[in-house]
Amino acid sequence: MTESADLITFLRTMRAVRRFSPEPIPDDVLHDVLQAARWTGSSKNTQPWHLVVVRDRGALQTLSRCGPFAGHLAGAAAAVALVMEDGRRQLDEGRLAQNLMLAAWAHGIGSCIGSLYPEDNSRRARGVLGVPDGKYLHTAISLGYPADDAALRLSANPGNLSSVPIGRMPLTDLVSWERFGAA
Amino acid sequence: MTESADLITFLRTMRAVRRFSPEPIPDDVLHDVLQAARWTGSSKNTQPWHLVVVRDRGALQTLSRCGPFAGHLAGAAAAVALVMEDGRRQLDEGRLAQNLMLAAWAHGIGSCIGSLYPEDNSRRARGVLGVPDGKYLHTAISLGYPADDAALRLSANPGNLSSVPIGRMPLTDLVSWERFGAA
Repeated sequence: MTESADLITFLRTMRAVRRFSPEPIPDDVLHDVLQAARWTGSSKNTQPWHLVVVRDRGALQTLSRCGPFAGHLAGAAAAVALVMEDGRRQLDEGRLAQNLMLAAWAHGIGSCIGSLYPEDNSRRARGVLGVPDGKYLHTAISLGYPADDAALRLSANPGNLSSVPIGRMPLTDLVSWERFGAA
Repeated sequence: MTESADLITFLRTMRAVRRFSPEPIPDDVLHDVLQAARWTGSSKNTQPWHLVVVRDRGALQTLSRCGPFAGHLAGAAAAVALVMEDGRRQLDEGRLAQNLMLAAWAHGIGSCIGSLYPEDNSRRARGVLGVPDGKYLHTAISLGYPADDAALRLSANPGNLSSVPIGRMPLTDLVSWERFGAA
């Protein structure tokens, strides 16, 4: 039986990783991550999703150009595209993304969400992956072992993320009790 | 160091719980859950959310009538309402919900998403919790120790969920490789 404190530490320590080592992800580890994703809960258990696993370097590079902040996909060991039934399932999509990223993190694999937008970029990504018209594709998740310890810190990431704040708001700003705004 | 297999088991075993014991959630446990939620990642670290913790029984009962499947809120030890900056942050909202529910599960606490809709229900819920106009409130998460072992199984849940499928689609239906539809 794993201690609660260890599980909370696991949840709290996942960070976005945008620079990856060239080491591939073993098939059994990838399978384990996909199985954990499979068990994600969804509204009325509709499971309104399909996953496309991408390891082809050319496809990863093309996807990396399908979003203004998606450059990390180019160097990922793999990406998982979240193909949703339609654009109204984003809460379920977020649950799936978080579960999949945590399952990767359970194996020491870093991840980052790549948002495929605006629509012309999303359309291009659907074309690369052969996603049928009518399905919704807005997210591809990079997976890979972190390039180095610094890759676990946002401040080590180059380029167009320099204006992103670091850390989190204090709990007193995050939480109200019984009524919005009540300490 | 917790083993990967234990962490994957933790992720895979969380199920929706809709019937709760009357046992309250200790303050330090609730604090731990909120801290884990606080560290959830969001798009460009915008943290577009605020949490309202509800333990007042009357408020929980009112919230339970603010959605056609939200009845479980009436018997929860507590609920956490996810107040989002606006309705375009549902992917981040889903990540937050999943992290919060997993942090609860790390302490043996069950949870279930209560969807507050349609709009007149959502408006009523915003009124109960004093959420300002312009903010988006669509989700309140029930938290509580499971009433009994059967509460961990969907089939034990009464009422209007009898048509919900049990289990998950097989991995071969869930996943494609490189191209949508490719085994």
